[in-house]
Amino acid sequence: MVLRIGFLGGTGIEAKGLALRFASAGVPVVLGSRSADRAKQAAADCNDLLGKPSVEGLPCQEMISSCEIIFLTVPYAEAGNAVTAYQANLRSHHVLVDVTVPMQFVHGHAVYLEQSGKSNSEVLSQVLPPGIPLVAAFKTLPAAILANLEIELNCSLLVCSDSAEAKNSVMAAASLIPTLRVLDGGPLSVARTLERMSVLAINLNRRYRQKGARFKIAGI
Amino acid sequence: MVLRIGFLGGTGIEAKGLALRFASAGVPVVLGSRSADRAKQAAADCNDLLGKPSVEGLPCQEMISSCEIIFLTVPYAEAGNAVTAYQANLRSHHVLVDVTVPMQFVHGHAVYLEQSGKSNSEVLSQVLPPGIPLVAAFKTLPAAILANLEIELNCSLLVCSDSAEAKNSVMAAASLIPTLRVLDGGPLSVARTLERMSVLAINLNRRYRQKGARFKIAGI
Repeated sequence: MVLRIGFLGGTGIEAKGLALRFASAGVPVVLGSRSADRAKQAAADCNDLLGKPSVEGLPCQEMISSCEIIFLTVPYAEAGNAVTAYQANLRSHHVLVDVTVPMQFVHGHAVYLEQSGKSNSEVLSQVLPPGIPLVAAFKTLPAAILANLEIELNCSLLVCSDSAEAKNSVMAAASLIPTLRVLDGGPLSVARTLERMSVLAINLNRRYRQKGARFKIAGI
Repeated sequence: MVLRIGFLGGTGIEAKGLALRFASAGVPVVLGSRSADRAKQAAADCNDLLGKPSVEGLPCQEMISSCEIIFLTVPYAEAGNAVTAYQANLRSHHVLVDVTVPMQFVHGHAVYLEQSGKSNSEVLSQVLPPGIPLVAAFKTLPAAILANLEIELNCSLLVCSDSAEAKNSVMAAASLIPTLRVLDGGPLSVARTLERMSVLAINLNRRYRQKGARFKIAGI
C-alpha cells in the first residue's frame, strides 16, 4: 500500500524537491503550511512542473490528518517547535521523517553544530509525543538536485530509525523513486553520521564549485 | 616527484592492502615492523602477489628514515604510542597519515567510540612532535577490498588535513591508484565524519552480508 506523504513546512526548497520526487513516483503528496494560500501556491508550482495535479496544498492540521508519513522540512532549529505545535494532531499511525541538519556557515564553510554529541534527530525524538516514531533520512541529498527532475538522483539513501516498522514504511515509499538506492542505515543514532555527511557534501560543493555532491554506497 | 611510502605497523591487513595498491601504481613502498624478519616476510608476501619486487620490509626506524609519507596502520588505540615511540626518527619532511577508526563491536554491531567529540586523528595530532603534519585518509576504504587487487576500488577518497602541503602530497600519491577518485575533504576535524562513515560502512557490510561497502561521491 502506498501511503500519503505530507510535508510540515511545505513551501521551502527541500519540501518542493522531495514532493516532486515522490509525486513523480506516483505517491500522493500534500504540502502543509500555516497559510492555506501559500500551501496551495506551492502545490500549484509543483503541479506546473509535474504537468499533472499530483500535489495538494493544505493547512498543516489538515495535511497531518490526511497523511501517514510526515516530513519535517523546517529549519533544523524549528523542528522541535513544529512538532510541539501540532502534537495534538499526531496519531500512532503517523511516521515523522527528519531531514534536518544542524549547521551554520562560518567564513564560507559549513560547520556542523554539535549538540552534546547527539544528532538533531535524537534531540528531536526527545520532544515527540509518546508512540510517534521518528525516522532520519534524506539528510544527505541536496535540495537543489531533488528539485530538478531532469537530474537522475543516482545515489544511495540511508534510512535510520529505532522503529523497524516506521523505517520500513519510509524505505518502501523511497524505493519508488527511480535511481535512488534505499539502504537500512541502522538505528536513529546513525543520524550523527548522516548529518555530518551532509555538511561534508556542502563543503565539497563549495570547494569544487558544484551543487550536487551526494553519496553512493559502492559494494552493497 | 613520487615519494616513498612507508607503513608503521606494516604486517596487518590494512598495511598490506594499501601497500599492494600503491606498489601496483608504481610507488616505492616500505613495510615497517619492530621485527625485521616479519617486515621482510610481509614484503615478500606482497611481492608474490604483485609478481615483482616492489615492496621492501625494514625495521621501523629504517623504514622511517627511507620514506617521506608514513601511514600509521596500527590499531587506533596504539597510534599515539607508535608515534611517541619513534618520534626521535621523525623529521620535518615527514607526513603522517592516520587511517585509524576508534570503534569496537558490541553485540555484533560496530560502535563508534566517542572521544570528547574529537576524531582519533585530532587526538593523535596532539601527541605529534611539533612541525610533523598529520593527514586523515583511507579511513573509509575496507581493508579486504584494498588487499584484493582483482577488485576495482571504484570509489572516492577523502583526504583531510590542516596542512595544505601535507594534504597535497598524500592526494598526489593516492591519485596514482586507478579507479580511486581523490578529493580534498577539508581540515583534519572532518575526520570526525570519516571515522563515523567507516563505522557506518562496517555495519552496512554486516547488515547486507557484504565486505566491500565504500563511498563514492556523485555530483563532483
